[in-house]
Amino acid sequence: MREDVIGRSRVIDTPELEAYYAQLGRFEAGALWTVANDIEPWFPRPASVPVIWRYRDLRPLVRQAPALVKPEDAGRRVVMLVNPKRREISAAVGLLYTGLQVMNAGECASAHKHAASALRFIMEGSGAFTVVDGERMTLGARDFVLTPVGTWHEHGVDESGTQCIWQDGLDIPLVNALDANFFTVHPNLQQPVTQPIDSSYAAYSRGFLQPAFLRQNWKKPYSPLLKYPWEPTYEALCAASRCHEGSPYDGILMEYVNPITGGAVMPTIGASMQLLPPGLRTRAHRHTGSFVYQVAKGRGCAVIDGCRYDFEEKDIFALPSWSIHEFHNASDTDDLCLFSFNDLPVMRALALYQEQAYAENGGHQPITASA
Amino acid sequence: MREDVIGRSRVIDTPELEAYYAQLGRFEAGALWTVANDIEPWFPRPASVPVIWRYRDLRPLVRQAPALVKPEDAGRRVVMLVNPKRREISAAVGLLYTGLQVMNAGECASAHKHAASALRFIMEGSGAFTVVDGERMTLGARDFVLTPVGTWHEHGVDESGTQCIWQDGLDIPLVNALDANFFTVHPNLQQPVTQPIDSSYAAYSRGFLQPAFLRQNWKKPYSPLLKYPWEPTYEALCAASRCHEGSPYDGILMEYVNPITGGAVMPTIGASMQLLPPGLRTRAHRHTGSFVYQVAKGRGCAVIDGCRYDFEEKDIFALPSWSIHEFHNASDTDDLCLFSFNDLPVMRALALYQEQAYAENGGHQPITASA
Amino acid sequence: MREDVIGRSRVIDTPELEAYYAQLGRFEAGALWTVANDIEPWFPRPASVPVIWRYRDLRPLVRQAPALVKPEDAGRRVVMLVNPKRREISAAVGLLYTGLQVMNAGECASAHKHAASALRFIMEGSGAFTVVDGERMTLGARDFVLTPVGTWHEHGVDESGTQCIWQDGLDIPLVNALDANFFTVHPNLQQPVTQPIDSSYAAYSRGFLQPAFLRQNWKKPYSPLLKYPWEPTYEALCAASRCHEGSPYDGILMEYVNPITGGAVMPTIGASMQLLPPGLRTRAHRHTGSFVYQVAKGRGCAVIDGCRYDFEEKDIFALPSWSIHEFHNASDTDDLCLFSFNDLPVMRALALYQEQAYAENGGHQPITASA
Amino acid sequence: MREDVIGRSRVIDTPELEAYYAQLGRFEAGALWTVANDIEPWFPRPASVPVIWRYRDLRPLVRQAPALVKPEDAGRRVVMLVNPKRREISAAVGLLYTGLQVMNAGECASAHKHAASALRFIMEGSGAFTVVDGERMTLGARDFVLTPVGTWHEHGVDESGTQCIWQDGLDIPLVNALDANFFTVHPNLQQPVTQPIDSSYAAYSRGFLQPAFLRQNWKKPYSPLLKYPWEPTYEALCAASRCHEGSPYDGILMEYVNPITGGAVMPTIGASMQLLPPGLRTRAHRHTGSFVYQVAKGRGCAVIDGCRYDFEEKDIFALPSWSIHEFHNASDTDDLCLFSFNDLPVMRALALYQEQAYAENGGHQPITASA
Repeated sequence: MREDVIGRSRVIDTPELEAYYAQLGRFEAGALWTVANDIEPWFPRPASVPVIWRYRDLRPLVRQAPALVKPEDAGRRVVMLVNPKRREISAAVGLLYTGLQVMNAGECASAHKHAASALRFIMEGSGAFTVVDGERMTLGARDFVLTPVGTWHEHGVDESGTQCIWQDGLDIPLVNALDANFFTVHPNLQQPVTQPIDSSYAAYSRGFLQPAFLRQNWKKPYSPLLKYPWEPTYEALCAASRCHEGSPYDGILMEYVNPITGGAVMPTIGASMQLLPPGLRTRAHRHTGSFVYQVAKGRGCAVIDGCRYDFEEKDIFALPSWSIHEFHNASDTDDLCLFSFNDLPVMRALALYQEQAYAENGGHQPITASA
Repeated sequence: MREDVIGRSRVIDTPELEAYYAQLGRFEAGALWTVANDIEPWFPRPASVPVIWRYRDLRPLVRQAPALVKPEDAGRRVVMLVNPKRREISAAVGLLYTGLQVMNAGECASAHKHAASALRFIMEGSGAFTVVDGERMTLGARDFVLTPVGTWHEHGVDESGTQCIWQDGLDIPLVNALDANFFTVHPNLQQPVTQPIDSSYAAYSRGFLQPAFLRQNWKKPYSPLLKYPWEPTYEALCAASRCHEGSPYDGILMEYVNPITGGAVMPTIGASMQLLPPGLRTRAHRHTGSFVYQVAKGRGCAVIDGCRYDFEEKDIFALPSWSIHEFHNASDTDDLCLFSFNDLPVMRALALYQEQAYAENGGHQPITASA
Repeated sequence: MREDVIGRSRVIDTPELEAYYAQLGRFEAGALWTVANDIEPWFPRPASVPVIWRYRDLRPLVRQAPALVKPEDAGRRVVMLVNPKRREISAAVGLLYTGLQVMNAGECASAHKHAASALRFIMEGSGAFTVVDGERMTLGARDFVLTPVGTWHEHGVDESGTQCIWQDGLDIPLVNALDANFFTVHPNLQQPVTQPIDSSYAAYSRGFLQPAFLRQNWKKPYSPLLKYPWEPTYEALCAASRCHEGSPYDGILMEYVNPITGGAVMPTIGASMQLLPPGLRTRAHRHTGSFVYQVAKGRGCAVIDGCRYDFEEKDIFALPSWSIHEFHNASDTDDLCLFSFNDLPVMRALALYQEQAYAENGGHQPITASA
Repeated sequence: MREDVIGRSRVIDTPELEAYYAQLGRFEAGALWTVANDIEPWFPRPASVPVIWRYRDLRPLVRQAPALVKPEDAGRRVVMLVNPKRREISAAVGLLYTGLQVMNAGECASAHKHAASALRFIMEGSGAFTVVDGERMTLGARDFVLTPVGTWHEHGVDESGTQCIWQDGLDIPLVNALDANFFTVHPNLQQPVTQPIDSSYAAYSRGFLQPAFLRQNWKKPYSPLLKYPWEPTYEALCAASRCHEGSPYDGILMEYVNPITGGAVMPTIGASMQLLPPGLRTRAHRHTGSFVYQVAKGRGCAVIDGCRYDFEEKDIFALPSWSIHEFHNASDTDDLCLFSFNDLPVMRALALYQEQAYAENGGHQPITASA
């Protein structure tokens, strides 16, 4: 790609150069100037595009899956949500994967571990549970649960429960891009439960008060708190919203944190829940980092790069890096809550985070399309 | 102090040596071997002794103070608790200071700041408040509040309140020992309240969920959460005690933490609340670091270096560094809760923390005295 | 990819399933089990393959480039070294880019900055210089120089110098994979030199002795020391080799570090120089992380996944993640020195580093091929 | 101490109050307002005073010691330098201890370890050595060596050497103030040498290049580099002074650092060497933290709180916290080099560091006395 700007590649190819390129090719080499402008863009140009997956479309298909495949054959029975421009790496956006997993009462997947880090956000059903390194956690709607890098984990639904659907989020495309993925099936297929149910939440239920007897031995690179239930989360958001205006771009945005460090829950994936009070319209901005959102409560819309995406509860949408975005709570009476997970811990650890307010037009994008 | 052990000073003074010492003295010098065994003990030999201050003794005296001095004359109207061996530095134990402050309804102290860090633990009364850097906090019994290094702060009691008594804890002796104390009276004597009441608790009420819009700007070396109320603290202790046995030496010991870092609330002072279920007797151990305890709930006893200290609610006691100690909840029906503050952050930052279990006698000290 | 193992995907496609997949496709969704075994491999399966680029092959082509393109048209006149399996992202291995840049005496490239981080390792010629954020550095053979994320930088050769060739190393593919690249041409095309020549090396020439007057203001996420000259590097390697055996896998491997933190020179790229004494054959191992090596001094061979790669001075070779590798200094009299750069800081920051010794066959791979 | 300022204690004692104080005293309590102004000063009021110990005074006395006491009786044969106001804690200034140790050829002290951290700065003689955790280090004039917290260490002089004198620096008063000192004599009185001589310097001789094979296993809270020789130190100072002006208050001040962290060499003690070019007069400032200086090279003077202290090579002087100070290189031809050690790591870890330029009088204090 030739750009006629000083400091950029603007070589005009000639037969002589073509011959030179051919010679370079013989030795697994090439001329940088033939690709420089492409691989060094002026600003991020993600392959990923914004996408919205509406739950009313997907739910019937997800609920159909149990009739089609058995969990023991599928490994995990998941409808994955794939960015149309990242099909080759099964990414929802950037290097993040997401999907909707469904299990019937009494089903249980086999235990495994992997170098990828995972999270779950429960969407519907009762009786779901996850076991992580010997701790069994009971899960209800909008609970958020971690299965971090290298942990033995498995999911299931109690015999007494109902069909459950949850969103999985993983960094599989990232870990694959870094050539660092490992996968192991548990030798016994199910791991023993060695601790009281929900014991990490029992220990860290207040976050600012921490069990010295557990903390002092924690050496892992992720949060010792594995389940973040919805009820205290929503209470905390409401309490904060009574005292604080929050961010102009995100309202009352609260990060789920690793209480030991105050940092992200896992080294590669951050997660947040944000509340927009009734009627709030945030200002637009953009930043590096890829995000997958789920509408946890309420309805409204996002405007991403000028396109409007109306959404309802349980809809999922993807925000590519450096896309201009803003949110609107369409209700005058109800809160809008957005759950999201992202690769911000990667951006920050690698010093790649950049942010820019959208200054034009009073901070709101002109809407040029809707999806 | 001569010790007849190889590797220790065992010089026997002679007239010749005495003359030599006198010569050294002329140049502000001395012979190390005359003091080496004293200043390099085999193990810590704190000047401080264990002390218990019983609230039934002190309460009448504390309540007498308002009739004797006005807050504007006293600066702060405080009965300080002084270790009999550390009177010269006004320390309760080690390099920690503590005292009981009393205020009548409608009284308010003048605002000031200092390099020393302070905390308060509310003992009785209603309507107490503390203002820290523009945030007013309402305080009830057993609430724990910070006024860290360099913050403008002041205390008072509402007109509609009752006489209030609380425990102050500070690192004044430490900061003085390090020749680093500063004190400034607020130019207006009272500072303006610039934020909603209890706004830091509203923002961090769940600890594991943190306001991104506040956190990203926090550069101070102490917790942005300034008030840790009793009710959620006790709930968290009870929740933990249902799932965990806790430490054999301390039961369900939970540290109050700085949510931003997961570390101590202030750089020089740590604080904890621990719960001992009915009847629990902990095992004895010792460690470096000085502690001031207040019995927040229940009754029982501590055994410190073989001496038994029975205590009731609101009693305060001091544990010197390296003293062997164990606790006993004397009730078969009620929890025992101990609030404490300590200099562990100093011990840890300076790599001076050491710990040792008491192995003899089944882990329990023979009791040779009581106080 | 079906694997008939419990815990893996082993669904057999049916017409009913095919129809289901088509329906999912309509909503940008898919069935995880159709790709699960591919995207969750048992262990890393890099697309990259080991490659060796021999300087005797490339040097004539590199020296031909100045006659073919002008630096002001090329941006940078670089022959890039491209992994045959990563051509689409111009990577040498993993997410690392490398190339050979050539400049004639008196040439100078325009100044620019980018979110990608870069390094240079000088191969031949005299009079080369790099300017980074106002500091001009003079460069000789085997000097190592940084142009980190976000720094203004430019390269040139003095009028009095000779044609210079150096190796560039960048994380362009990584930063692009993370959708976080930015590029800016300096408004004046050349930046002013505002500090004494080689001033960062003058300040940090001993590493363990650091200028308090500079350190205290350094907030950047990379090393303030920008040039690491060859001579003291080789001296340090020799000194270490006289006292230490080093790693069984890497000999005397020394990391270039950021003196402020003791960590990697840049957040995304680490770099090392290692010395193998005459005749040394290291043991084989594998680990996550991608490496680009240049033979800085001496000759020998690497065995990578059973294939032998003989190399001479200035040859460059690529080691993919999780490839089993070992080195051999083929000389009985001369040291072998290998310069390398890698993505270990990424692996470590993201908790993805894994390492495994090759235990079979006395720790040495059977050689099954050579390249 | 009564101060008639609002916000300070200004209670006037009455018979009634005296009676009240007596009652408080019965319960190990007191009234804060009787001491508040003393223990909360407006700014640091160190007990320590500035002192200079001139080597011409002390050297004859130090050299006399070997005739008076045997090393095996003294433990260590040290003339300690004691602040006239801190005799009770054997401190030179603040909570720092220093002394001059002397050993004859062929003498060796017994090995021991302690929780206090120590350093040595060699003053004269040849053949001195120190052994730390199995590493023997050879020491010459102006070499700086660490014996950190908890390390087995011992000192001696080779049979072939000459009488040696060095300065010891320790944090004994600090560790005692924190009730955290321990002392152990090595069971064999001498420890075995298990590593090559000077092996830590061989490994870290360039600081910015670090041995991966050693670093990865280093978990201790202090520097793995134990000896910092004079020659490379002086070279580094000279190199820096050719490119940098340094600090207006301290000239070319370089900190000795722990290469693993880039921080202080030990958790409680920092150390620096600073160079003042011929004729340089620094500007005055003050800061918290206590310092012990030794004139490593050259002559000049310090002005501390208005008093002038002329000094020559090997003179030692003490700077109390918050004292205003400035330096002057009295020579027009020779460098002045000052070695110093300090408690800045403590000040910084505990958030107690404060600094203030002296703005009056063109930045130089009027001289009102000399010592």
